[in-house]
This record gives sequence, C-alpha cells and structure tokens, in this order.
Amino acid sequence: MKPLILLSNDDGVRAPGLRALAEALDGVGDVLVAAPDRERSATAHAISLDHPLRVEEVGPKVFAIDGTPVDCVYLALHHLVPRKPDLCVSGINNGFNLGSDVFYSGTVGAALEAALRGVPSMALSLERRSPQDFSHAAAFARDLVEDILGRGDAIAPLTFLNVNMPTGLIKGLRVTSMGRRIYRDQVSVRQDLRGRSYYWIGGPEQKGEDLPGSDCTAISDGLASVTPIGLDLTHQPMHSRLSGFWTDGLLQKRAR
Amino acid sequence: MKPLILLSNDDGVRAPGLRALAEALDGVGDVLVAAPDRERSATAHAISLDHPLRVEEVGPKVFAIDGTPVDCVYLALHHLVPRKPDLCVSGINNGFNLGSDVFYSGTVGAALEAALRGVPSMALSLERRSPQDFSHAAAFARDLVEDILGRGDAIAPLTFLNVNMPTGLIKGLRVTSMGRRIYRDQVSVRQDLRGRSYYWIGGPEQKGEDLPGSDCTAISDGLASVTPIGLDLTHQPMHSRLSGFWTDGLLQKRAR
Repeated sequence: MKPLILLSNDDGVRAPGLRALAEALDGVGDVLVAAPDRERSATAHAISLDHPLRVEEVGPKVFAIDGTPVDCVYLALHHLVPRKPDLCVSGINNGFNLGSDVFYSGTVGAALEAALRGVPSMALSLERRSPQDFSHAAAFARDLVEDILGRGDAIAPLTFLNVNMPTGLIKGLRVTSMGRRIYRDQVSVRQDLRGRSYYWIGGPEQKGEDLPGSDCTAISDGLASVTPIGLDLTHQPMHSRLSGFWTDGLLQKRAR
Repeated sequence: MKPLILLSNDDGVRAPGLRALAEALDGVGDVLVAAPDRERSATAHAISLDHPLRVEEVGPKVFAIDGTPVDCVYLALHHLVPRKPDLCVSGINNGFNLGSDVFYSGTVGAALEAALRGVPSMALSLERRSPQDFSHAAAFARDLVEDILGRGDAIAPLTFLNVNMPTGLIKGLRVTSMGRRIYRDQVSVRQDLRGRSYYWIGGPEQKGEDLPGSDCTAISDGLASVTPIGLDLTHQPMHSRLSGFWTDGLLQKRAR
C-alpha cells in the first residue's frame, strides 16, 4: 500500500504553494488535502470549539473547510482520512516561518496538530517573492518526503520538522536550531471616516539575528533549514531554579 | 515606583476571573488591563495582521480590544503602557490549561507574547466549577506575584510560567513538567434545517495521564501547578539524529 500523505496549509485550499506540493507528492504516496477555504495566516494553533465547521469536497480527495489549519487537520484525522496518515505536510507557505514566527504561523499550527495526534509531520515555507515560483521548493519537498518516508520512524513522537527554503535551486540543507527573526514592532493609529481611531499592529521584518546554527543563518547562507521542534515545552533549568525557591511547596509568605 | 503589572486574558474584559485578579493585585503594583472585548478562548497565539483593531477604555486603565489575547498584549506593550511592565499576568482563566492545552489556549498565548517581548509573565488558570469562586485562586495569585516580584529576575528571559490551580483553598504548589491531558477526540456530523452537513470538533476531557511530576498529577494531588515553559522549541536529540542523516547537507537522493 502506498503511504498516505495528508496535506494542509494556512494560505487556503486554492493557494499555488499547496497545489505545487500536491503535484510534487502525487506518486510518492496517496495524497489527501484538507485546507482552509480561504487564507488563514497567523492563526497559530487556534481551534474552533464554539462554532461548527462546513466541509466541501472541491476536488478528488481535496477538502475545503471554513476553519483554521488546526481545525482542518483535526477534522481530517478524525473523519476524512481512510486510515492513519504516514505523514502530514503543511505548506508550501508563501513566506518564511523562521524563529518565533513558529508561534504565530498557521502553517506550523497544522503540522503541530498532526504531531500532537501521533502523525509524523512537517511544515514547509518558502521565501516570499513576487512573482513566486514554487517549482524548486516542491522538488526539494518531494526529495525530503521520500527520504523521510524511506527511513521509517525518522521523526520521533511529539516532534515535527519546521522547514524553510530559499528561493531558486536549493543547493543543500542544514539541521538548525530555532533562531530569532526580528521585526520592527510597531503600532499605527489612524482615523476612520467618522474620526474614530483604529490600530494596525505588526511591523515589517528587519533582519534575522545572526545566531550560529539557527534557521535564519542557514537561510542567509543559501541553504534550506530543517528545525526539529519538540512538544514538551518544559524549561528544565527553570524547573530546577523554581524548585529551589519553593522546596516545601509553599510560597515564602505562606510559610512565614 | 510601584511595579507595573499588565493583565490580560482570553475570557474577555468583563470576565469575573480577570476582575478578581485585578482586585487582588491592586496594591501589589499599578495594574493596567488590556483584554479582548469578548470571549476569545482557544485562539492560541493568533495575531491580527490583516485587519485593524479597535480599542475602548472601559474603565480607568482598563482597555477592551476587539482582537485576540496576543493582539491585546502586543498593543498594550507597544502603545498603551506608560513604561515597560515588570510583569504580565494572564487570567484567571475559567478552566485548566494543562498539558497540550498550552498550544490552544489564548490565556497562555497572552503570557507567551509578553515573554517574547521581554516581559516576565505567567498564565493563571483555575479548575472550572459552576458556580465559580475565584477568591482562593486570586489570593494565591497575589502571593505568587509578590513572591516573584520580590525575587527580582526570577523568571528567566524567553521563559514564562503556566500556573494551574485547583478549586478551594490552595494548600501548596509544585513545580511541574508539561503533562498530557486526554480528551475524547471526536467529530460530530449534523444536518442543518436545509439538510446540509455541519461538523463539531473537540470532545470532552477524559482524564489527565498520570505522569510523575506533571502538571496534571499536581492537580490530582490537590496542589497548584507551576510549569516553567521555554520558548526555544528546538528538540536537541532530534537535532543530533537528523544531523546524522544528512551529514553532507544533502538528501540521499541528491547525493547519489
């Protein structure tokens, strides 16, 4: 039986990056697409628990869902797939998800949701360009997916891969750590036509901080970046430090 | 100068848990509230980049914002606060945020956003009960905040605290690891009045998995749980493993 590959994204079911990915992976495995019916960028790990979802089959094994990327993966894994997928791939996103972008990204949210549900997964993002060309990224994605599937259990439970790709022919990859992408933080206050204020948040990118071994640095060096992300967020040094504060399980004030 | 404490939540600016927290911390520091204008649970780390936000000052230093918890903290830190806050506290959420709830929770999203912006922070959540009584949790929160502020730089950069509290008088706390909270995963398909299908996702809680030292276990033992969360999600064992796969920076197929 061919491997089953679940695809999702946050740019929407009609996005060229998703289409390029689906075409590249056709033949590597059986592909099923469950993606938002429109762009849902920066939705992170949001899930729709307070309102129901609509599902439309817009093509053979292509489902458009009026929810977040996490909704799509949840619904696919529990309802749409014929069997447990061998891999979930989210993307190809139009624009990087580097450093702390990981926390905001719906592309990453979809991959994380699959990982939480025990399905090996990866998020794929490509440097934003206009016009955009997904062909090299899709070819790299196919090679990476074949490599990963060929290794069996390459992706450990409760981890997933965050992959970022530069534009153009990809000359190699580097396994990286999560770096820091720097944005010019800003708030812009404007007036509407009735004189009431409204606020835009989120400034443009400044530059990636040049941390050795980071995802941002790999991209600066013209390589694809593969960052393994873990889902146990416990910070062990802080665990030790805090345990030293409250050895008796009581706050100071209460112990007095 | 009294410490400045920024409050937010995901249950909305009028939520009793936020009100109880604000009252408990009044006097510990100068309190400024920036919270969603309505309930925004399960919005995770979603941020509004595609549409602008409205802000309404609904009370002295209490701002209602028509966005996500992350929007609120972003806007507060870059626009509403008179100086950099000494602490950001998100909550008190009506219901636990244990184990992988952390990925979905807007309460946690707000604390994480503050941590990303260099402000020490914590998320506070209380066991859901009806009717709910926030008095003991708010008293514990005040003691915890006083303790943390009294220690100076207790919360390391790029970390924050995820705090969960049982109902009733809190007899102590335990520093914990992120555990696993188990839900009955389910999808329910129903028909609307015109015969079209719609889908509910997300089942009820089953039980916390009994992992030693976990947040769920602390709660089972009747203690408040304090989990230190780190923002570098790089999974080091997987980093080593993957580096072994692709030592030459090339995928197998490409190296052939």
